[in-house]
Amino acid sequence: MSINSDKLSVSDSLQAIEWRHGVLRLLDQRALPLETRFLELTSSAAVAQAIGDMVVRGAPAIGITAAYGAVLAAQESCAQSAGNWRQLMRPKLDKLAAARPTAVNLAWALERMRHVMDGAGEQPVKALEAEAKRIHAEDVAANRLMGEAGAALFAPAAGVVTHCNTGSLATGGYGTALGVIRSAHAHGVLAEVFMTETRPWLQGARLTAWELMHDGIPARLIADGAAAALMASGRVQWVITGADRIAANGDVVNKVGTYGLAVLARHHGVKFMVVAPTSTIDMNTQNGASIPIEQRGAEELLIFGKQRLAPDGALAWNPVFDMTPAALVDVLITERGIIEQLNTKTIRSLLDSPM
Amino acid sequence: MSINSDKLSVSDSLQAIEWRHGVLRLLDQRALPLETRFLELTSSAAVAQAIGDMVVRGAPAIGITAAYGAVLAAQESCAQSAGNWRQLMRPKLDKLAAARPTAVNLAWALERMRHVMDGAGEQPVKALEAEAKRIHAEDVAANRLMGEAGAALFAPAAGVVTHCNTGSLATGGYGTALGVIRSAHAHGVLAEVFMTETRPWLQGARLTAWELMHDGIPARLIADGAAAALMASGRVQWVITGADRIAANGDVVNKVGTYGLAVLARHHGVKFMVVAPTSTIDMNTQNGASIPIEQRGAEELLIFGKQRLAPDGALAWNPVFDMTPAALVDVLITERGIIEQLNTKTIRSLLDSPM
Repeated sequence: MSINSDKLSVSDSLQAIEWRHGVLRLLDQRALPLETRFLELTSSAAVAQAIGDMVVRGAPAIGITAAYGAVLAAQESCAQSAGNWRQLMRPKLDKLAAARPTAVNLAWALERMRHVMDGAGEQPVKALEAEAKRIHAEDVAANRLMGEAGAALFAPAAGVVTHCNTGSLATGGYGTALGVIRSAHAHGVLAEVFMTETRPWLQGARLTAWELMHDGIPARLIADGAAAALMASGRVQWVITGADRIAANGDVVNKVGTYGLAVLARHHGVKFMVVAPTSTIDMNTQNGASIPIEQRGAEELLIFGKQRLAPDGALAWNPVFDMTPAALVDVLITERGIIEQLNTKTIRSLLDSPM
Repeated sequence: MSINSDKLSVSDSLQAIEWRHGVLRLLDQRALPLETRFLELTSSAAVAQAIGDMVVRGAPAIGITAAYGAVLAAQESCAQSAGNWRQLMRPKLDKLAAARPTAVNLAWALERMRHVMDGAGEQPVKALEAEAKRIHAEDVAANRLMGEAGAALFAPAAGVVTHCNTGSLATGGYGTALGVIRSAHAHGVLAEVFMTETRPWLQGARLTAWELMHDGIPARLIADGAAAALMASGRVQWVITGADRIAANGDVVNKVGTYGLAVLARHHGVKFMVVAPTSTIDMNTQNGASIPIEQRGAEELLIFGKQRLAPDGALAWNPVFDMTPAALVDVLITERGIIEQLNTKTIRSLLDSPM
């Protein structure tokens, strides 16, 4: 896929990450939906801090943010010592990479920045800035391609369930699963979106509800436990989610709750669509069972904000992700094509196809 | 089933409803788990108010509370006019009946109290008090019978998922689904309970967690969306829930989320058990599809306590209950016996069997 970043506009949808003449402007997602607040970052250390503090979240969004952080790192290093910028810049990149060690796209984006850095001369900032913008623009372009490809599968007046947040807030703009929903809305084939609140972090209630209201897309919030009754009601034809990591055989690791939605979708004859760029596919992981699932602390379930929900001392089982076997995925949408029979062979064939 | 209330002790488990020499003592469930607070009620009007305000919840618990409220109504009426107590008492019973019009056991318990009232002479209080205590004790006895019957189906070291709150707080004591869990724990065949937090009201987090900690039963809280991953992990062999209403064909209406758990259980080869007294079976309702499902306001999903979760103006789809088809129920436990093939014929046969 060849993308000219000059031709791409990311301004017609929500701008959570914006690069303005050497300043990185981030929408502070921690304050949503109560407050729409932006942070303006001017140092690579501040960018690393913002990633660590979850001002920005979502693997593609983290990658893009880190790439702009690398540009700031180059500026700082050159200002400090034009002759020695490369040596000064390396620990700054390491700091960015360590801000969220599990996010796949963070390492991937910094690897691209390092590659440009290696080939740069005495004035690296311009080349690095161009690469960061390219990473950002490519992500948006990939989302738009995926959005169109996914929406093309919709029959008119489709009802959709989506989970977590996969929109402009989680990506460079437009979104993966929410990109498909945006495209379907633009083409007039979307009846209504039902978004799960997505406990315990409530990304659906806090972020997806906010994005869809912002765009004027008809949407209703549901309790995670109401998805089965919704599917039984006949009001939805698709469940659409993103992915955090896809194994070589097509098993999908994503936000906890995704797997249950996939099982329920199959039971009700509702189609299950996963939308993710090919950078999410990890060919070094044979299947989903070998992907470690992060367990988080009980307090995420026991306390909300300053309010206690459950008794002090109660135990919890709180996995962040779950694994959906490839066989439950009806279609995988990537920027390089779609796969309807998800397995090692079809994935290999997609990745080997000419760009 | 013949039950002698004198032989039954309800004091060895949590006491959420207690009748002490003409005073009704209710554990205020609205304050849990932050505070263990009791209300002492001395008038039928205060009892009606407490039911309406959800100081007490759960169909059996509401029925028992109303029965004690009827005793207070008789006391008040007799004190006002010994010759005219019957006439004075009727509007007080109507007020109790209207406090929560949808709770099945409320009408059922008051019908029993009216029957005793009709046969009473000039001194009705003693007879009504005895009947209220009998309703209470019968409920606890039924729960203990069901607890034993359900636990008898457990293999050693069973892992269990339960939903909502079906324990001492929802019944006269001991509980329906939680009664089975209590019995299994007492018999040493329970490995661990996983309780769903049960959005949006969080009965699992607030009430079930509190009850199980109180009894020292090993339990972990999970997000509703984590149930599928839990079942895939192989750590649970049973999903056990109560029921709000069972249709003549065995379809089960219960707290929203129950149906999804039943589908997931079937998918994973986990058994699905429903525990409910026969008073929950409504032979006038042919099947679950004809039971109207109450929709509640969006604010239950948009706001928690004083904290806003989702943007102002967001829409929601918020059904309180869902319907699980009889075919997904592996076993129904009642106080009159168990049914493994749930349908109109087997239910009819259970209800026609000699007491």
